[in-house]
Amino acid sequence: MKASQFLISTLKEAPADAEVVSHKLMTRAGMIKKLGAGIYNYMPMGLRVIRKVEAIVREEMNRAGAIEMTMPVVQPAELWQETGRFDKMGPELLRIKDRHGRDFVIQPTSEEVVTDVVRQEVRSYKQLPKNFYQIQTKFRDERRPRFGLMRGREFIMKDAYSFDRDMASAKASYQVMAGAYRKIFDRFGLTYRAVAADSGAIGGDLSEEFQVIAATGEDAIVYCPSSSYAANMEKAEALAPSQPRGAATQALTKTPTPGKSTCEDVAALLNVPLSTTVKSLVLATDTLNEQGEIVKSQVWLLLLRGDHDMNEVKVGKLPGMEGGFRFATLSEIEDHFGCKPGYLGPVNLKKPVHVVADRDVSVMADWICGANEEDFHITGVNWGRDLPEPALVADIRNVVAGDKSPDGQGELAIERGIEVGHVFYLGTKYSKAMNATFLGEDGKPQFLEMGCYGIGVTRLPAAAIEQNHDERGIIWPDAIAPFTAVVCPIGMDRSEAVKAEAERVYNGLLAAGVDVILDDRGERPGAMFADWELIGVPHRITIGDKGLKDGVVEYQHRRDAQSSKVSTADILAHVQARLSA
Amino acid sequence: MKASQFLISTLKEAPADAEVVSHKLMTRAGMIKKLGAGIYNYMPMGLRVIRKVEAIVREEMNRAGAIEMTMPVVQPAELWQETGRFDKMGPELLRIKDRHGRDFVIQPTSEEVVTDVVRQEVRSYKQLPKNFYQIQTKFRDERRPRFGLMRGREFIMKDAYSFDRDMASAKASYQVMAGAYRKIFDRFGLTYRAVAADSGAIGGDLSEEFQVIAATGEDAIVYCPSSSYAANMEKAEALAPSQPRGAATQALTKTPTPGKSTCEDVAALLNVPLSTTVKSLVLATDTLNEQGEIVKSQVWLLLLRGDHDMNEVKVGKLPGMEGGFRFATLSEIEDHFGCKPGYLGPVNLKKPVHVVADRDVSVMADWICGANEEDFHITGVNWGRDLPEPALVADIRNVVAGDKSPDGQGELAIERGIEVGHVFYLGTKYSKAMNATFLGEDGKPQFLEMGCYGIGVTRLPAAAIEQNHDERGIIWPDAIAPFTAVVCPIGMDRSEAVKAEAERVYNGLLAAGVDVILDDRGERPGAMFADWELIGVPHRITIGDKGLKDGVVEYQHRRDAQSSKVSTADILAHVQARLSA
Repeated sequence: MKASQFLISTLKEAPADAEVVSHKLMTRAGMIKKLGAGIYNYMPMGLRVIRKVEAIVREEMNRAGAIEMTMPVVQPAELWQETGRFDKMGPELLRIKDRHGRDFVIQPTSEEVVTDVVRQEVRSYKQLPKNFYQIQTKFRDERRPRFGLMRGREFIMKDAYSFDRDMASAKASYQVMAGAYRKIFDRFGLTYRAVAADSGAIGGDLSEEFQVIAATGEDAIVYCPSSSYAANMEKAEALAPSQPRGAATQALTKTPTPGKSTCEDVAALLNVPLSTTVKSLVLATDTLNEQGEIVKSQVWLLLLRGDHDMNEVKVGKLPGMEGGFRFATLSEIEDHFGCKPGYLGPVNLKKPVHVVADRDVSVMADWICGANEEDFHITGVNWGRDLPEPALVADIRNVVAGDKSPDGQGELAIERGIEVGHVFYLGTKYSKAMNATFLGEDGKPQFLEMGCYGIGVTRLPAAAIEQNHDERGIIWPDAIAPFTAVVCPIGMDRSEAVKAEAERVYNGLLAAGVDVILDDRGERPGAMFADWELIGVPHRITIGDKGLKDGVVEYQHRRDAQSSKVSTADILAHVQARLSA
Repeated sequence: MKASQFLISTLKEAPADAEVVSHKLMTRAGMIKKLGAGIYNYMPMGLRVIRKVEAIVREEMNRAGAIEMTMPVVQPAELWQETGRFDKMGPELLRIKDRHGRDFVIQPTSEEVVTDVVRQEVRSYKQLPKNFYQIQTKFRDERRPRFGLMRGREFIMKDAYSFDRDMASAKASYQVMAGAYRKIFDRFGLTYRAVAADSGAIGGDLSEEFQVIAATGEDAIVYCPSSSYAANMEKAEALAPSQPRGAATQALTKTPTPGKSTCEDVAALLNVPLSTTVKSLVLATDTLNEQGEIVKSQVWLLLLRGDHDMNEVKVGKLPGMEGGFRFATLSEIEDHFGCKPGYLGPVNLKKPVHVVADRDVSVMADWICGANEEDFHITGVNWGRDLPEPALVADIRNVVAGDKSPDGQGELAIERGIEVGHVFYLGTKYSKAMNATFLGEDGKPQFLEMGCYGIGVTRLPAAAIEQNHDERGIIWPDAIAPFTAVVCPIGMDRSEAVKAEAERVYNGLLAAGVDVILDDRGERPGAMFADWELIGVPHRITIGDKGLKDGVVEYQHRRDAQSSKVSTADILAHVQARLSA
């Protein structure tokens, strides 16, 4: 490609609404152009990256035995009504009506349509397993689209769906996909982690997120540096402390803490470690009748160490919480504690509540909590002596760095990541809702066992940039760079020698299969270099009259601090050596 | 690809709603699966064809200097309001509202968005010409979607848009695209014709349709077998007859023609050629005031030879018709002719009308038309004697086979075609509406000159099938076949020799870059052959124990009447020879 035949359109300034570096740099590098909130044109430079992502995904999906098809963007509502998602999903599901007033949705995923296809196509266990995928435009009407391609409304996703005869086979299909995902992310040249994720109501542990590591990532990733353990924050288990509960040494003492309604404030006031305080979170669960009206509510008191945070996913799995929970209302709190929030605790309750102690709280002695009286806390609290042993002890907190790894191999560390892929065992959730069966070996109909597997094709480049950039711009891994190499001739219009060498190097790289662009725009060197550093092409060859007199050109990798002189005889081999490095 | 790893899903019966052969065969061959009216899943077998079409289009577009980008499927209404198309377009433009109640459309084309991009990107004439294209999902909410992929609602289109500094440059860009389209359609291996098309209000003659020739085509194509002239029916000119008008020889005679209200019936009754009759078409034009109310109507009488048909596009271009026309109402007809339709004519009018005679009618003598009296016609009608010379003589009819070619090179012939591509000079229609300007060499802003260029990517396979099929199924051209070759082993599970030779041939073809599938499903030969003949894979190699004993396998091209024996030593070369044939 010659630059004069392409669209190179860089900007000095990032758009005002760009909050994250990938959004800023993709816009400045002319890769995306905003059309509306969360809706972007993929400009020629950006589309090249997306196409490379797609090609790698497609190749590895095919290699893993998945079969490509394409499901419509506009999908009739009927199938979505079969699974109930047409009504259950929030406004992020874009619902539309056609000219005849019939309901349609724009696909955010395609479980319904692929299940409909397979229930028609697959009749016998002999046709299983099957895995269908598509690389297709999706739409989610996010309330607050932002971060460019990171959280857009229209985006491209690779979604795959496996269909198996039983759970064992479904797990094998899942593992094949997880393996393919590892190959895909390896090929992208990104630092990533596959982390165990919560599998929701389906249970089991067959759910993994593929997280591109980046300090700016939205997700907290938990891992163990001395083992292979990795999970997302929702999933990572906080083990029960190995040390037993200490003996009570302090008397229960009511202490004035005027205006100190947080554990931090109380610990500071009393000059004790935050870890000696206990925070009280008051939740409630409702029992509904068939009309969906609340017939009974139960108030819960969750106790967490002052320096720990509640994990909503773990709380949602407590026995009795399966139907969902909410924070208690002020009147429920007054009613049970006789006090307003900020000074609550499990001692001296006005009415009984369901107490759940986090594992760490359950082994504490001589702790501090609210006195259920405004502007007072109590110190020297001890289980069994000052209050009954907790009704339930459970892991209800987020892990913190330094916690023991659940696999017993060391301590946990935490880093930030951007989710770009997800493999998920679905079980029979969709096949049951849509009566998608096949005839088993015994001739009886059985529900299809399913898995689903997504990769955010347009999100991936944004994640790659969050991980790989500097103050000058993007630094693409070779595999997904818009161009792998750029030839920058200086004074091409003035010097025949420069022009000839530039063409020679350009054609030589092309012939070697390198995706190279020749910058024949005639820009000044400073502007030209700034463009390519912003765009992030990893390999640059600069050709000037001065060097040519000595028989050399300059090579610089985008990560190199400075360029190195390479003889014209060696430059092609030099680039190729750096490519395969 | 091995068949066991793919989805081969053929049907004995075509769906009840399939009216055309391509719809029937694509469904039966498992290439598409209906999801809703005009909305199809592209099944794995069909998607392979679509991807090959896309690849050829992409390659030739790139070669022609067009730059690929992608514009969103969901587009904000604002740009469509700028050009007025948001309001002007009918319900085929699918309008939607997002969660905030903002208006959007699903793109049927992208003139607005690409013009918006270019008006931001292009500042100077130095950046021109530019041509941007995308291969992207489109939606047109057809009132009556049918014919499978031929007239679907959701479809894939390649749309390109050229931007130039002046008309001369725009015409050059247009010619580059027209040339690229020829290369593309040549590569598809289809019989097609590029035909001049009407360019509507823009004028000029820079509009060509690319029509795949097929007896089942919706469009009539006019061409001259002895020259390069080709046009669609709307556009093809009917030249003025070269012979002068004959002298009047008959007296004007009123003739009873009870119940004979068509030219055909009258000609049969009077036993004269249909070409001696003249049919009267009564149209009307309205003058509107600023409120859009009709303030005045004009009645027109169009006269055509009884064996000719009116051409609406030509009529729409008559002076006075620019604002559109309609058929006259019954009361307008009674009012001007004093008679009901079926017996109308230009002689003895009750009120004056604007008479337009087709060129052929203007040279007729002794002709027959309605008497403006029910159940009567008049014969021996002659211009100048029985009625004034026509106010206007014009080409207002469709050409018929045997008409003189407008280029003077012979006679016209007519065949049927399916429009799969269109190149169109747009001028400044969109750039003016959207104020898309660039600075010319004189430093003054000028409107961009545009062209647009479409290829129906998902329609093309359907057109290819309409042109290439037989009673057994599809016959794909090599370039767009889902698989180029299929290896069919007979009794692979019983015979090691068959299995080994099948693998050898399969791997040999793969290594030679042939897109081959090995049918390892273990189907019986009859069912296996029927599948591949239905699917339409052009090259088949059948391997059986019996032949292998003689050192031969069977080769059959999908168009061959029977298979031929080829030695195992020669089979790879034989297939490749047939491929390049």
